[in-house]
Amino acid sequence: MTGGGRGGASRVAIPEDSLFGPENLPYGVFAPAAGGYRVGARLGDTVLDLAALLDDPIFFRADLNALLATGPTRWREVRDRVRELAETALPVHAQHPLHAVRMKLPIRIGDYVDFYASIDHATNLGRLFRPDTEPLLPNWRHLPVGYHGRAGTVVVSDTPVVRPKGQRRTDSGATDFGPSRSLDIEAELGFVVGTGSVLGVPVTVDEFTEHVFGVGLVNDWSARDIQAWEYQPLGPFLGKSFTTSLSAWITPLDALADARVPLPTQTPAPLPYLRGSDDHGLDIDLTVRWNDEVVAHPPYARMYWSPAQMLAHLTANGASVRPGDLYASGTISGPAPDQRGSFIELSWGGTQPVTVGGEIRAFLADGDRVRITATAPGTAGRPIGLGEVGGLILPAR
Amino acid sequence: MTGGGRGGASRVAIPEDSLFGPENLPYGVFAPAAGGYRVGARLGDTVLDLAALLDDPIFFRADLNALLATGPTRWREVRDRVRELAETALPVHAQHPLHAVRMKLPIRIGDYVDFYASIDHATNLGRLFRPDTEPLLPNWRHLPVGYHGRAGTVVVSDTPVVRPKGQRRTDSGATDFGPSRSLDIEAELGFVVGTGSVLGVPVTVDEFTEHVFGVGLVNDWSARDIQAWEYQPLGPFLGKSFTTSLSAWITPLDALADARVPLPTQTPAPLPYLRGSDDHGLDIDLTVRWNDEVVAHPPYARMYWSPAQMLAHLTANGASVRPGDLYASGTISGPAPDQRGSFIELSWGGTQPVTVGGEIRAFLADGDRVRITATAPGTAGRPIGLGEVGGLILPAR
Repeated sequence: MTGGGRGGASRVAIPEDSLFGPENLPYGVFAPAAGGYRVGARLGDTVLDLAALLDDPIFFRADLNALLATGPTRWREVRDRVRELAETALPVHAQHPLHAVRMKLPIRIGDYVDFYASIDHATNLGRLFRPDTEPLLPNWRHLPVGYHGRAGTVVVSDTPVVRPKGQRRTDSGATDFGPSRSLDIEAELGFVVGTGSVLGVPVTVDEFTEHVFGVGLVNDWSARDIQAWEYQPLGPFLGKSFTTSLSAWITPLDALADARVPLPTQTPAPLPYLRGSDDHGLDIDLTVRWNDEVVAHPPYARMYWSPAQMLAHLTANGASVRPGDLYASGTISGPAPDQRGSFIELSWGGTQPVTVGGEIRAFLADGDRVRITATAPGTAGRPIGLGEVGGLILPAR
Repeated sequence: MTGGGRGGASRVAIPEDSLFGPENLPYGVFAPAAGGYRVGARLGDTVLDLAALLDDPIFFRADLNALLATGPTRWREVRDRVRELAETALPVHAQHPLHAVRMKLPIRIGDYVDFYASIDHATNLGRLFRPDTEPLLPNWRHLPVGYHGRAGTVVVSDTPVVRPKGQRRTDSGATDFGPSRSLDIEAELGFVVGTGSVLGVPVTVDEFTEHVFGVGLVNDWSARDIQAWEYQPLGPFLGKSFTTSLSAWITPLDALADARVPLPTQTPAPLPYLRGSDDHGLDIDLTVRWNDEVVAHPPYARMYWSPAQMLAHLTANGASVRPGDLYASGTISGPAPDQRGSFIELSWGGTQPVTVGGEIRAFLADGDRVRITATAPGTAGRPIGLGEVGGLILPAR
């Protein structure tokens, strides 16, 4: 279906300062003004219709799962082909302005796991919740702590977030039920599994790039009052499960080849099943905007556990992964106050409220908007963008 | 497609003492000796091929999800029609001996949640893990404590279970990685969601029967050594996620109409969102066999939180459910020693090993088999069976 067609052909115009040049090319699922959902790639401010450009039914779909399942050889072929096409004149009907398309959740998510891989975040939360004890629990430096979240309530960026109701313990020690009073964000990176694995067979650290397709931005909205009352002994549940937002665009790992950085020193040395020959972190800088005001710059390069270690741990017991599984890093926080990826940290448990747009805030108010963006070193010597994940808070129903 | 066909017609012969008479009729997904998977109903020791008997594409499928999504009116129509058919001569090609078919996981599971709804189990585990404190944590009587498990590793009954490896803390305080030394079971009931709900809109206690299709038996295999080291502060993860077994047959709620029993008194009274006008428990008796020896009779009627309360709590924050979601009760234990639904309780943390087949055991050995069955009062004045969930332990790989 390449070439020809309605309206002739042209090269895609890419703004000079674009974070979405041909070295980036994230994938998403879009619908043009007229027509159903299909797979696209972002180039500048244009969405390329891969269903129209490439002769493969995996793109005539409303999710990336068929592409994910093809595996790394095909991922690379597709990426190479789209980069070639990006240098040529393309049929006009296969190009859509970004502002004119609707985006949907790009993945049919199987299981969703959330980790807790930032030592600064884990330390901050330990200090806030258990002020009289060692902030890191004894297991934290030995394994990537994680838990399963709710896959069915992961939504695409810009889906409004209804303030959750829930049960909490009041200051008087009674319980009540009502709209959360401490609605928070968690700025995270999400890793999208492509190739599945077999039940009973772990995925090693060195097999990471055989199984993980790419990266999205995640906001794991959290109701701290609900979470605090429910989470013993089985972990977070309704304080998290109401909504998790994922960026519309998924950046392939190959676009992040030049963003690899050494991991921080891990002490004690991890057990062998958490070690690989070429493990690395990612130099991705996030920006958190609260009502258009920048409030934090969480640095992914500081994360203690690597994405490959998280996957190796997740599967160490033989648990299998499926194409479309999503695992997230947990809140990304750095050591500086303006590097904290959650409001409970930024406001230090509400005791040091933040001024946002002239208003004093500790947690989210109805009508607030949060937008998380990120950049990383690209392979063309300039930064690339990782899309964005945004949301507007609606009042409880 | 009813009537006629190859080989004439006959009535299904039902053994006199069968727990699977026409008042039961659980659903499953089966493949005959020649042919692909489709939906069937169990009658006596015969599987009725619903794809052959009923003219509806929802039965020409390898999962029950399309049937689940149709909702309670259609569920009842199908059940009534199959009961009518069970009284008539049926085409022989639509009848298959149970022993001659292969069964598969009956549901494409969306999210899997596990609760902790037995007060005897929660009390026992509190005494074992926190001997110096009040066994029930402060939140336990206020809300049904639960967490998300791994949906992608739920397998159908009789799938062998590979002993998981994992990281644990040794007696000396070091960590190591290896095959679990305390592999356990959890005998549970699982509730299968039929009709989905809308994100942001809770399902009330009184809407339970509009959303829940039926019941299966669950064995939530647990590696206690892995679990004990990993679970603070985010809850169980790899100690559970390696395998969860579900019965091949799902019993519709309508078959359990005469199994309804009053709930135990709940003190303090639950908050209004956990109260309904007609809430109830279920009088289902489980039997746990360890290498063919009966070791426990967990009584579901003793469960503190009702299935409807669990669903109302799960969705109270606006979290949506989808057709095929599964939530389980948590380990079912009664107050008597022989009513405990896990081996950590039966052996009291390994301190009171159990004699099984002449051998002393606290936890599962390679080659062990566990089989859980259950019965309930049926609507014809005799008990009905809830199928079974079994598994054989294979050595770690």
